[in-house]
Amino acid sequence: MRIRYEEMQQEFERVLRKYGLSDERAARCATIFAENSLVGVASHGLNRFPGLIDFIQKGYVNPQAIVTKVAGSGAWEQWDGQQGVGPLNAYTCNERAMALAREHGIGCVGLRNTNHWMRGGYYGWLAAEAGFALISWTNTKPNMPAWGAVDRHVGNNPLVLAVPRPGGPVVLDMAMSQFSIGRMEGAQRAGQQLPLAGGYDAQDELTSDPGAILATNRVLPTGYWKGSGLAILLDLVAMLLAGGLATYQIGQQVTEYSVSQIFIAFDVTRTSSAEVVNQAVDGVIADLHASIPVKAGGQVLYPGERALQTRHENLAQGIPVEPAIWERVLAL
Amino acid sequence: MRIRYEEMQQEFERVLRKYGLSDERAARCATIFAENSLVGVASHGLNRFPGLIDFIQKGYVNPQAIVTKVAGSGAWEQWDGQQGVGPLNAYTCNERAMALAREHGIGCVGLRNTNHWMRGGYYGWLAAEAGFALISWTNTKPNMPAWGAVDRHVGNNPLVLAVPRPGGPVVLDMAMSQFSIGRMEGAQRAGQQLPLAGGYDAQDELTSDPGAILATNRVLPTGYWKGSGLAILLDLVAMLLAGGLATYQIGQQVTEYSVSQIFIAFDVTRTSSAEVVNQAVDGVIADLHASIPVKAGGQVLYPGERALQTRHENLAQGIPVEPAIWERVLAL
Repeated sequence: MRIRYEEMQQEFERVLRKYGLSDERAARCATIFAENSLVGVASHGLNRFPGLIDFIQKGYVNPQAIVTKVAGSGAWEQWDGQQGVGPLNAYTCNERAMALAREHGIGCVGLRNTNHWMRGGYYGWLAAEAGFALISWTNTKPNMPAWGAVDRHVGNNPLVLAVPRPGGPVVLDMAMSQFSIGRMEGAQRAGQQLPLAGGYDAQDELTSDPGAILATNRVLPTGYWKGSGLAILLDLVAMLLAGGLATYQIGQQVTEYSVSQIFIAFDVTRTSSAEVVNQAVDGVIADLHASIPVKAGGQVLYPGERALQTRHENLAQGIPVEPAIWERVLAL
Repeated sequence: MRIRYEEMQQEFERVLRKYGLSDERAARCATIFAENSLVGVASHGLNRFPGLIDFIQKGYVNPQAIVTKVAGSGAWEQWDGQQGVGPLNAYTCNERAMALAREHGIGCVGLRNTNHWMRGGYYGWLAAEAGFALISWTNTKPNMPAWGAVDRHVGNNPLVLAVPRPGGPVVLDMAMSQFSIGRMEGAQRAGQQLPLAGGYDAQDELTSDPGAILATNRVLPTGYWKGSGLAILLDLVAMLLAGGLATYQIGQQVTEYSVSQIFIAFDVTRTSSAEVVNQAVDGVIADLHASIPVKAGGQVLYPGERALQTRHENLAQGIPVEPAIWERVLAL
């Protein structure tokens, strides 16, 4: 089953208005959710939309709260998300980081007391399409053991890096776990193994059996000790720059809210013309594309390239949806 | 065989003066090399020191060149390393990023035309000990295939993140390959397997046999597609912020020189007192230390914790050295 982008966006907008968002904010938030499904990340688009409404109903997300500057001067500011709608808070702080970068060359916003931003790559695309490079990340609840540990004290803390490119921005959006919980649950439902080891089983052995990993909760940090270390540092820097909660403090709450996020924008055309920047980025991508693929006839892609292809396909053909979830949204 | 820190530092200083560095610069550079061996990273300390002298002799490194500001205003500046001594260029730009952060809250220096900084974590420690958080990275020559590729188009581009902590800074220093070439060569010499798969053999299979990986050159990116993607983005952002060479351009030269490096410092005590910052960081580390270790009696460490332990040991007992390499330095 496929749904046209406009129809999905309008349906989200209708529901968000009903749950207390102003017209403009409902439209913006609906666009973010629909765009995430459009590029193939339904887990942070359509499939997560009922979860946002659930959090609004339970009071974890305040649909009317407005993100507000609370501290900072110069090129680094701290904003308070006031427990509002995560994607809207992130959107505003991403825009603010770009405005600071226009003024200072680089701009940083630390955002605290906010909620799940859904797909971090969305903000990377926005920044890149506006001509900025972006480094951005969020912390999360503890959902991964540190390297060498059994129990979960570390977040998977997704990290986004983006640079502009006229043919399509280069955007990396990676969590610090090798596979997301959603990916593992999907493989389990489909009776499939993961393509590579994704965690540990009850015998302390690496396994690609999603059920065995979900049973132990011993999710593998990407790159073993490296993803674990990077997750710890991203959490620390986010906590300090946002003046917000760290992963372990988020874990002391009843569920995942009041996370900390960082947006660092760079005005990369400040010292070079846009043309020079574009040529430089295209040079790197052309060299990457010249790689010899492992599989004959294969293609080596840059981060963001598949999302762009999926976006074109889904704009033309409609966005694939799970009918039961779409029906749930229609009934909201 | 162990050598006292002071003796190693003085020996390096003697050699560097002989090869054209001023007294002050020779002392600083010798300190960086000796400190890297002191914390247990001889691969970027003593063991690499003859390589620097070799590069000076061959003209790839100009011992008298002084790093110079070339562009930028506000919180982001570009500096040109003038093909000078890598650790000295990195030191100066790290200091400059901190000065910019003191002024603007955040400061960024993009450094181009520089040379190997040796151990990136050194600059993280300096920044953290001065009360700053730091995000810093370098690009390298192409030494790793992109995910899905056979031939090397991507650098392993080491990334450093650091935050201050009175009991010892938290400092992550990670390359984007799962294991370094040096680590694999060491395992091969010792007739050992790697603890985990580190690349592909000639049959396209993941292997922990260092010889098989060094034969194919198919080094594994850390976290498979994730480390590959992060390496690509770090290269792109470094190239743009430094106005310098990208990995593929470094690969077109006769050897690895003229790399690009980024130093982003954050004045984390600007909005909170040092006491509040310290307590917040200690809270995260205390929670991490409370993890249940996989191995009974084991300990879950924060990034930088082992280096600090090694530093204390080596200060007391002397730095372990390979006698042949130490003799080489004495003969320089």
